[in-house]
Amino acid sequence: MAVELYFFQPLGTNSGRVFLTLLEKGIPFIERELLGTEFEHLQPAYLALNPRGQVPSLVHDGQVYTEGRAICEYIDEAFPGPALRPRDPFERWSMRKWCRFIETDLGRSLMMIHWNRIVPTFVGRRTREEVEKLLETVPDPDRRRAWRNAYLQQTPQQDLAESQRRLRSGAQAIETALRASPWIAGSSFSLADIDLLNFFAFIAQWSPDIVNDSATPRTTAWIHRMEERPAVREMRARTRRRPTVPPR
Amino acid sequence: MAVELYFFQPLGTNSGRVFLTLLEKGIPFIERELLGTEFEHLQPAYLALNPRGQVPSLVHDGQVYTEGRAICEYIDEAFPGPALRPRDPFERWSMRKWCRFIETDLGRSLMMIHWNRIVPTFVGRRTREEVEKLLETVPDPDRRRAWRNAYLQQTPQQDLAESQRRLRSGAQAIETALRASPWIAGSSFSLADIDLLNFFAFIAQWSPDIVNDSATPRTTAWIHRMEERPAVREMRARTRRRPTVPPR
Repeated sequence: MAVELYFFQPLGTNSGRVFLTLLEKGIPFIERELLGTEFEHLQPAYLALNPRGQVPSLVHDGQVYTEGRAICEYIDEAFPGPALRPRDPFERWSMRKWCRFIETDLGRSLMMIHWNRIVPTFVGRRTREEVEKLLETVPDPDRRRAWRNAYLQQTPQQDLAESQRRLRSGAQAIETALRASPWIAGSSFSLADIDLLNFFAFIAQWSPDIVNDSATPRTTAWIHRMEERPAVREMRARTRRRPTVPPR
Repeated sequence: MAVELYFFQPLGTNSGRVFLTLLEKGIPFIERELLGTEFEHLQPAYLALNPRGQVPSLVHDGQVYTEGRAICEYIDEAFPGPALRPRDPFERWSMRKWCRFIETDLGRSLMMIHWNRIVPTFVGRRTREEVEKLLETVPDPDRRRAWRNAYLQQTPQQDLAESQRRLRSGAQAIETALRASPWIAGSSFSLADIDLLNFFAFIAQWSPDIVNDSATPRTTAWIHRMEERPAVREMRARTRRRPTVPPR
């Protein structure tokens, strides 16, 4: 039966990892784009599918699957195609440890920094009242607070500084891992590489002081290798990337 | 080769789930207790093993494994014994979705509420100076801030209220799931039940207004079934539970 993916355009972290996992497995799917810039994920049509208003959602055989990380493991388990998880239990543990680190430690810091730069561009042509009304529809209170702080540019400076510190130390840990093995979790390409591309690789453009050829040569080489993969090329061709960051 | 588990005494959430996973699989292991009340996880001996100072750590064949959730899947994959993950891909996705919900959404709210009640009892006989010095050794800044807020009883009231709201709504979601199936992720006992016992079941004692026989009958019946499992009985016999909460 048909597979449908509800995902954000422009393509973001959580949507990107599921989109790319489907392409790496060679699974055809129907694209259901949600315009993040239009807050389409908070409209009743989507909330009926996923009451938490989180994106992406995968529909397979009439069943809705949520939570990006759980969806990616589901896809690898439920469909034929190349294995995206290492066979070796140690590397598989390493994959899950990295997925968690990328999403939780690194991802939260990145979101804080970059929402702060991006969200005002999303909402720029709306009045403050219109934005407040949209923010009220965000079901998760932490997320609502983060979006409001980003929109009003009220995120505490110490939180932004701490996120920057984590980003730098995370980038170092990634470089160290890629010095030891070709892929982030070890000898096999895995879901952790898919996460890393979608959650982290754009840092090379957004924070070139942190990720660049001289400070993190293994990381930039890994990014080039990733971008040459047929599935990644296809993802780039079929979707739009995140909006360009306004200069500071 | 020998398996060693470094875990917190009294037994807590993350330590408890790995301890119980080992017992459910029937794997013998060497107990390496760390006294949370003595901050032993922040001493150089343990930081040499796990620089982030997080507990638990599993040592297997000389390799250190960290991150509770990744450890539990590793144990189920690397050792013989009864399967602790459903065979069916849908139920396996459901297990991972619940594990994430229990740890991230529910777990963070619970920690905020209960650290706030428990941490002062840990540190009661220390001077404020001694505690400040201990707090400086917590490597993770978010965790350090949460512990300091708990110790000084400075957690913002609105954060506590929001955590209470999440706890109530999470308890309802759990009750609904246990109305549909005997185990939290579906027809099979799984790692999600192990997580639920360790992260959530103590709420029946700590917040009897939220979890009780009349408000959440399926949940309390599930707790009784869990406590009768041989592995859970063994865990209770070999460890101490969390300290009793002081009356408010």
